[in-house]
Amino acid sequence: MTDSAPKDKAQKSLLMAFQLQGRRIFVFGGGQVALSRVNSVLNAGAAEILVRSLDVCDEIKELTKTHNEVRYIDNIDLKDAQFDVENEDRCDLMFACITDRAVSEKLAHTFRKICPINCADIPDLCDFYCGSIVKRGPLEVLVSTNGNAPRLARRIRQDIEGLIDGTNMQKAVEKVGILRAKLRQKHSGQDKESIKTRMKWLSDVCDSWSFNQLGSLDEADFDLLLSQYPNHVSHDQFLSIAKS
Amino acid sequence: MTDSAPKDKAQKSLLMAFQLQGRRIFVFGGGQVALSRVNSVLNAGAAEILVRSLDVCDEIKELTKTHNEVRYIDNIDLKDAQFDVENEDRCDLMFACITDRAVSEKLAHTFRKICPINCADIPDLCDFYCGSIVKRGPLEVLVSTNGNAPRLARRIRQDIEGLIDGTNMQKAVEKVGILRAKLRQKHSGQDKESIKTRMKWLSDVCDSWSFNQLGSLDEADFDLLLSQYPNHVSHDQFLSIAKS
Repeated sequence: MTDSAPKDKAQKSLLMAFQLQGRRIFVFGGGQVALSRVNSVLNAGAAEILVRSLDVCDEIKELTKTHNEVRYIDNIDLKDAQFDVENEDRCDLMFACITDRAVSEKLAHTFRKICPINCADIPDLCDFYCGSIVKRGPLEVLVSTNGNAPRLARRIRQDIEGLIDGTNMQKAVEKVGILRAKLRQKHSGQDKESIKTRMKWLSDVCDSWSFNQLGSLDEADFDLLLSQYPNHVSHDQFLSIAKS
Repeated sequence: MTDSAPKDKAQKSLLMAFQLQGRRIFVFGGGQVALSRVNSVLNAGAAEILVRSLDVCDEIKELTKTHNEVRYIDNIDLKDAQFDVENEDRCDLMFACITDRAVSEKLAHTFRKICPINCADIPDLCDFYCGSIVKRGPLEVLVSTNGNAPRLARRIRQDIEGLIDGTNMQKAVEKVGILRAKLRQKHSGQDKESIKTRMKWLSDVCDSWSFNQLGSLDEADFDLLLSQYPNHVSHDQFLSIAKS
């Protein structure tokens, strides 16, 4: 839980899924907060994660051995460092995970020019927060209390995890992802009418089949279902076609 | 639902809450997608939203009358326009909501230099996606299927809305936000020990009281609860103190 200065007016934010493929991330600091940021951006598919600190914890050292994406630059005294953000210090996202506020401010003002920044526990130096996140395969959920109750966000996240795990949502998302790719492969027209028909058909399936029904689709089912395209097929109709 | 090219490898992303206070946003295009982006960033607290298009829908025109933050620049032919992103065209977030792919590409390549970008329905030109969002006061939840099943994300969002509305989570978040601000006001020490004690006390309350118990706190309750600080008070203990 962060313990930050209360804002004068209610905090709001735009929730978004930021794409990290091909991106370079700087993580300043080498403690447990830095470690959690490294893990987050590593899981999110960042191409290059440079940990910049005079010292890092053992877990980060371990990550540099097991993941080529993670590198540790150990010769930087952040207090005196000068950065060339247009050239060798360019990056796409910056995390400061250090306790020295003056250094965080310096980093924030330098890097804000080129990328969104996050300074742990200093809300007024943050372009973005990471919130409390559920990951279930391709399905991800972010819970944000907009700074009001970060600790409670954890409990809400746990309740959402319970909902997801109890209803086969993850499998349903995975299977619809496959069905969608197969549909586009089989009926690949790029004119507006083709796109519209594909979207309508897939929407009908997504809206009318249950999570369990979607999650149970297998390879043979995909073929059978796609053979009915562009007709809408309810799950009952699908079962009777499968039996016949 | 977007209907985008399938990616070679599983899409991943970093979910985040992006702060828009004091920020300038460009929305290129003036149709229904542009309108939905304008509404999103307006609700998220953006300071300045410039809609740039040769034509906009009536709803956007209406927004420019009711919200000072929203302005409409109507003299831009995007095909030929030159942008000066370092000076008058600087912005903090850019949305392209137009159907012409070549123009989207031009905009993306120009603005990616200075800010994160989103080009509707063109995933390979997006730094971020907006996903399916639940808003309940200060509590916000983002559902992302990482491009696998956007339509299903809508249903998952609805189930999460049901969970939130059925369990008083919104009220609990609001009340903990107030309790947190009052706690910091009454016990304002900024040394490490004071911060740690505050965080521990608030965490204990958040972890051990139910959403309903937290959501039911009123002004007198806040005072009574804070009078017990730094001792941890269970809800049963609180009730018996309140009665005595």
